[in-house]
Amino acid sequence: MRPSHLGEFQLIDRLKRFQGASPRVLKAIGDDAAVLALDKKRYQLFTTDMLIAGLHFSRGISLAAVGYKAMAVNVSDIAAMGGRPAFAVVSIGVPLKLPAAEIEKLYYGLKMCADAFGVGIVGGDTVRSDKLIINVALLGEVERDRLVLRSGANPGDRVFVTGPLGGSLKSGRHLWFVPRVKEARFLVEHFKPTAMIDASDGLAGDLGHILKESGAGAVIDEAKVPLNRGVTLAGALKDGEDFELVFTLPSLKAKKLIQYTKVNRSFRFFEIGEIVASPRKLFIRDVHGRKKEIEPKGFEHF
Amino acid sequence: MRPSHLGEFQLIDRLKRFQGASPRVLKAIGDDAAVLALDKKRYQLFTTDMLIAGLHFSRGISLAAVGYKAMAVNVSDIAAMGGRPAFAVVSIGVPLKLPAAEIEKLYYGLKMCADAFGVGIVGGDTVRSDKLIINVALLGEVERDRLVLRSGANPGDRVFVTGPLGGSLKSGRHLWFVPRVKEARFLVEHFKPTAMIDASDGLAGDLGHILKESGAGAVIDEAKVPLNRGVTLAGALKDGEDFELVFTLPSLKAKKLIQYTKVNRSFRFFEIGEIVASPRKLFIRDVHGRKKEIEPKGFEHF
Repeated sequence: MRPSHLGEFQLIDRLKRFQGASPRVLKAIGDDAAVLALDKKRYQLFTTDMLIAGLHFSRGISLAAVGYKAMAVNVSDIAAMGGRPAFAVVSIGVPLKLPAAEIEKLYYGLKMCADAFGVGIVGGDTVRSDKLIINVALLGEVERDRLVLRSGANPGDRVFVTGPLGGSLKSGRHLWFVPRVKEARFLVEHFKPTAMIDASDGLAGDLGHILKESGAGAVIDEAKVPLNRGVTLAGALKDGEDFELVFTLPSLKAKKLIQYTKVNRSFRFFEIGEIVASPRKLFIRDVHGRKKEIEPKGFEHF
Repeated sequence: MRPSHLGEFQLIDRLKRFQGASPRVLKAIGDDAAVLALDKKRYQLFTTDMLIAGLHFSRGISLAAVGYKAMAVNVSDIAAMGGRPAFAVVSIGVPLKLPAAEIEKLYYGLKMCADAFGVGIVGGDTVRSDKLIINVALLGEVERDRLVLRSGANPGDRVFVTGPLGGSLKSGRHLWFVPRVKEARFLVEHFKPTAMIDASDGLAGDLGHILKESGAGAVIDEAKVPLNRGVTLAGALKDGEDFELVFTLPSLKAKKLIQYTKVNRSFRFFEIGEIVASPRKLFIRDVHGRKKEIEPKGFEHF
């Protein structure tokens, strides 16, 4: 069997069998970041993402944008756990023919995002490569009582997103997006979600991960899903790379959050549906209350 | 200017300008691993290395060996700081046409090395790629009083290596090498080196890094450098990828270490020369005591 027949998530499932078991590892593969014991009060978060020219960005895209995104996707993973990013190491595969000024742009973009989110770039590796490759590995931290996994959603919980979805790749929003660290920290400090993920594979896929890990289902109200201009519901469900947070809250907390956001407009939180008992089932409900089951799958980056 | 005119170490020097400054960062770019404050007794070590098919390994090499090496080069970096490796995240760029069985071999090699050195693989990323790419980011730990940097060598210190050098790439030793974690831990516990590095760029280059960071020079005794079979001194100085440790000890400690190794033969330590005052000067001394200056430069991987 070739990886084209396996797909990204099956490869990750296979990798799971090779992960280490240790009392210091609270959560390894299967969430936005690994969770490691740090001290009595805090966990350390550890994540990595690789971007490759041609697959994750095309010719003509500014390398500052590429550098920014390479850091930002990792920052977004730390946010999805309720944490704060801290330190990064960066590996870069550089084509020989790439002018030094272009490499400076790439570093500049990396640094711009790192500075904006309090990340110290503390190490790296540079190698020769046919295509430009950037790998960032990022450490973060979260207080033990503020950690949010994908696995805590319960039937009756309300489903939220932090912003409009869809059309991110076409519009270029996937490059200069703002990782939702502030929103995540606000939530874990005041309205701690039961489950959370960053929307990288499209709503159907990202919610699918929460449903899989939580052993639950969800009903999404078609009319409530915030859409980017020119995007249909299908785009929100499948396009991916929005990097908004998708999270779940018990219904009482959900009401309080909605009330809060009517008064304080610093953040946007859109309630889009609810968690139900049927494991891994995802339904779209239209304005007439008719439910249609869809596959809890989004964009596969592989 | 193109990176071909810059070279790997100039690129790393440029990257230094983009590194973060934080009271929690004891050492960032410019050593084998970054050193971060962990708690009152320990530092955390953080390093990363990227391997790319065609550059770091050729067709026909078993992917188990490639996986093993991808982890081992990072383990070796942690050893060079006197530390113990702990947790890794692994990014893999996989060609679509690569059979799943080959990917399993790669994972197997990664896991084999991780298990041998107590590393937990806690996360990763898999992406599509033309060429096979493996990036490992590794966390380690070291007691504060056992940390060894490249920068502590003093005139009068003796220079040691943990094993014979040269011909590693030709012989295939660069793949299944044993990172010198045990030797490093023995040293920091009993004969703490003033400076240490793992030999990845050839003795001239690796010692050159110690000389640069320590602001010192060195004289190497030609006849004392342990050579692999069929390798000349030039090979030991320039070939690279030996992954032995190169370290320096004050002369009294050096004598004790040599006495110790005559009784206990678990480890091998070869005294090969001494540190002198002239900054960044590297000399080779022949059996007649004649000194010849050479460039403190080895293999550039870029």
